[in-house]
Amino acid sequence: MSKRDFLAMEDWGADGVEALLRLAARIKRGEIEGGLERRVLAMIFMDPSLRTRTSFETAMFLHGGHALVLEPGKGSWTLETEHGVVMDGSSVEHVVDAARVLARYADALAVRAFPKGNDWAVEREDRLIRDFAHYSDKPVINLESTRRHPCQGLADALTLREHLGQTRGKKFVLSWAWHPKALPTAVPASAAIAGAMMGMDLVVARPPGFDLDPDDMATITRLAGAAGGTVSVSDDLDSAMHGADAVYVKAWGALGAFGRPEEGAALRKPHREWRLTSDRLRATRDGKGIVLHCLPVRRNVEIDDAVLDGPNSVVVNEAENRLHVQRAVLLELLGRP
Amino acid sequence: MSKRDFLAMEDWGADGVEALLRLAARIKRGEIEGGLERRVLAMIFMDPSLRTRTSFETAMFLHGGHALVLEPGKGSWTLETEHGVVMDGSSVEHVVDAARVLARYADALAVRAFPKGNDWAVEREDRLIRDFAHYSDKPVINLESTRRHPCQGLADALTLREHLGQTRGKKFVLSWAWHPKALPTAVPASAAIAGAMMGMDLVVARPPGFDLDPDDMATITRLAGAAGGTVSVSDDLDSAMHGADAVYVKAWGALGAFGRPEEGAALRKPHREWRLTSDRLRATRDGKGIVLHCLPVRRNVEIDDAVLDGPNSVVVNEAENRLHVQRAVLLELLGRP
Amino acid sequence: MSKRDFLAMEDWGADGVEALLRLAARIKRGEIEGGLERRVLAMIFMDPSLRTRTSFETAMFLHGGHALVLEPGKGSWTLETEHGVVMDGSSVEHVVDAARVLARYADALAVRAFPKGNDWAVEREDRLIRDFAHYSDKPVINLESTRRHPCQGLADALTLREHLGQTRGKKFVLSWAWHPKALPTAVPASAAIAGAMMGMDLVVARPPGFDLDPDDMATITRLAGAAGGTVSVSDDLDSAMHGADAVYVKAWGALGAFGRPEEGAALRKPHREWRLTSDRLRATRDGKGIVLHCLPVRRNVEIDDAVLDGPNSVVVNEAENRLHVQRAVLLELLGRP
Repeated sequence: MSKRDFLAMEDWGADGVEALLRLAARIKRGEIEGGLERRVLAMIFMDPSLRTRTSFETAMFLHGGHALVLEPGKGSWTLETEHGVVMDGSSVEHVVDAARVLARYADALAVRAFPKGNDWAVEREDRLIRDFAHYSDKPVINLESTRRHPCQGLADALTLREHLGQTRGKKFVLSWAWHPKALPTAVPASAAIAGAMMGMDLVVARPPGFDLDPDDMATITRLAGAAGGTVSVSDDLDSAMHGADAVYVKAWGALGAFGRPEEGAALRKPHREWRLTSDRLRATRDGKGIVLHCLPVRRNVEIDDAVLDGPNSVVVNEAENRLHVQRAVLLELLGRP
Repeated sequence: MSKRDFLAMEDWGADGVEALLRLAARIKRGEIEGGLERRVLAMIFMDPSLRTRTSFETAMFLHGGHALVLEPGKGSWTLETEHGVVMDGSSVEHVVDAARVLARYADALAVRAFPKGNDWAVEREDRLIRDFAHYSDKPVINLESTRRHPCQGLADALTLREHLGQTRGKKFVLSWAWHPKALPTAVPASAAIAGAMMGMDLVVARPPGFDLDPDDMATITRLAGAAGGTVSVSDDLDSAMHGADAVYVKAWGALGAFGRPEEGAALRKPHREWRLTSDRLRATRDGKGIVLHCLPVRRNVEIDDAVLDGPNSVVVNEAENRLHVQRAVLLELLGRP
Repeated sequence: MSKRDFLAMEDWGADGVEALLRLAARIKRGEIEGGLERRVLAMIFMDPSLRTRTSFETAMFLHGGHALVLEPGKGSWTLETEHGVVMDGSSVEHVVDAARVLARYADALAVRAFPKGNDWAVEREDRLIRDFAHYSDKPVINLESTRRHPCQGLADALTLREHLGQTRGKKFVLSWAWHPKALPTAVPASAAIAGAMMGMDLVVARPPGFDLDPDDMATITRLAGAAGGTVSVSDDLDSAMHGADAVYVKAWGALGAFGRPEEGAALRKPHREWRLTSDRLRATRDGKGIVLHCLPVRRNVEIDDAVLDGPNSVVVNEAENRLHVQRAVLLELLGRP
């Protein structure tokens, strides 16, 4: 029997995502107990985490299982990711062997690895998470790879449904924000996929030069169409905000300057004012558009204090929903009947 | 219903502390099982730990719960602690958001953060632990803040009671020790509070210039008075030791040189001989005064090997008591009936 | 009642090892559940780990217990290992106190500490693990010390038995490999001890100057003799491979250059071709000799991709067996009846 992974929301299809969201809602209402007894999740973090680590560790525990954390390059061995390489450099263990071995100890693996290279043409292949999935014969969960953060996307979808009710045809603005660093595009791509799969009318508001990967935009457009929604792009943040039901604020770097920090910083510099303020929030539908962000958020850089601490912000509930959707994913992937 | 925190022993009052000590004693005798099933404690360590981390992780597990560990700046995001700041520097997440989110995943938070700044007037406000308590809607436990280490103080109190029986009116010497670094004052303040709440006659023996914060001394004096004890200060270690029932050895830095390491080292330099030796121990009551230390201890710097490995030392039992008092605190704060 | 440690396979004798292997086989078949309820294992890692940490954490959990991880110098205090020293340097806590205290919180300790010094005459005493065992009044498990890695040796023994059936008289080649670093000798010594205790005919193939410690060779020879096997040494890898039933590939540094990296690198340099290739593998018995390695393995440096990914390699099963033998050790040392 072939195993199933959770690498991207769209891999599970509309029905699969709907089933996860329904299960997550039942879990959140306290209707589901147990199911992960004697199950072990091995989490491999190449990069920092607060929500992901805490919510997965809690999720496993609440259902009777256990999550353990490995940090390659810190408490665990540095991982080699190139294939066929003569490993006489600094990397100690190949991802092939790590994946195979961990699959013998654990019932599922979960991997976080942000992009590291300087060539988007290479990085966009998302090889590391795909290699883990290929070499592990147990399910692999994506905790944010170069291209996707499906646990975040699923939490976003649940949050949209909870606060907006019927989501189809409602306006979802994905709003680029300035940030001191060129952040990855996995979260904005996954948030847009979530909005698209919920059938919303999506506006990607970003400065010229800050488009998402064309393949991601094609996926988002296809998913929106299938769910009865639309996709458009705007370089005018203020007009994009008009009538928005939901505003998802997120900083990301220009893919055209991927891996070149100084060039990326220069491209961002003129757009320092791309930030969600109380003024901009007033333009949303009846001034009541909800505000989402994956967190961590740079206060007064991406979103002002007054917005984050005000009534429109749903970011804390959105973070809480990480827990519930992940419990659903874990129960689907490795739950006992 | 308002939630309850454990930020300082004195916040719980004499009755609250007495109840915790009685519960801890019952726990130590093996009379209490379970009570923390499906409960999660999220521990945030800004600074290293051996006893605290191990004893809390064990405490949660022994009663059916789970403790998880986050290390901001290492496996987790660097935390911003200033309010209203434009977060375009190196800190990635604000403590406000971390506290709010963790309270959604866990049933209680626990935070360790030693002082970092260079201005005692600011640091003494103990803002970080107070912010966690303010922004978390779940109980917050202090794992050592700038001003207090109440889990240590509670363990000290239990240890004093176990070894001395009736504590009221017995002599407790808090003995400053030389140390290569300017250590924080949270432990000596908390130990003195423990002695004071146990009604002991407390002598703070320290060189001139090494007084504890005046507010802490006022608190200690008030608590001692309420419990039938006394407080005095001495700059003569050898005479202070005479007739002591308990000697608590602890190094700390001069608050007058707070944040200025070289100035602090110069102030400590003349007092290298402030160290608990076998000779000094003989001056205690019948030579049988018990020796406490919070650990980790610098052997032959703070206390000689012969003392630590001899019959007067109760430091290992004192460390063990961390486990039992914390089990009591956890059961009080988040135990299931 | 005196406590029992697991510091080296040979300490347990032939009968003790046989009992562990039989128990491990039953565990692997799923015949044993529970037994570690409310038991805590405190693991102290001075050095990185993937298999050891994951398999012990999983082992404790699967039987109802809990393993916790401390990393001195990172999340936990730097440990002092010298006795009688005046601790005014950088180390914060003495191993004596750490061992005593952890034994109050946990039901067993487990310690990993690779050699650090520059004097083999000192390091070979394996003081740190022995000190932990001496000062802890709870069982201590060796997770790889300077001299031994008995959990690996035990997994090796189980793997040999599983794949070869009757092991007595079969040919076991311990094959040195080139490596960019001077790795420790604990694994090759422990693998050889495993082969010796299984009664195999052991050939240690290594370049001149890369002998194991003479005391280890004496132990290996004694154990092999007692079990009906033999021990020989070869400096010709290709001829050593002829007719091998099992090839254990492992890199290690020249003890004669211990603690002198440049001298060690110069000694290794002429032997870059000591590597397990498909060609060399064909010389094993019917070309079907099994290939073992403790992992992590440097691909195409110690062993070629084609070998590791081919049918002779049992390295993933060998790694899995770490889990099962450790469950056996834990049940023996701290299992509830």
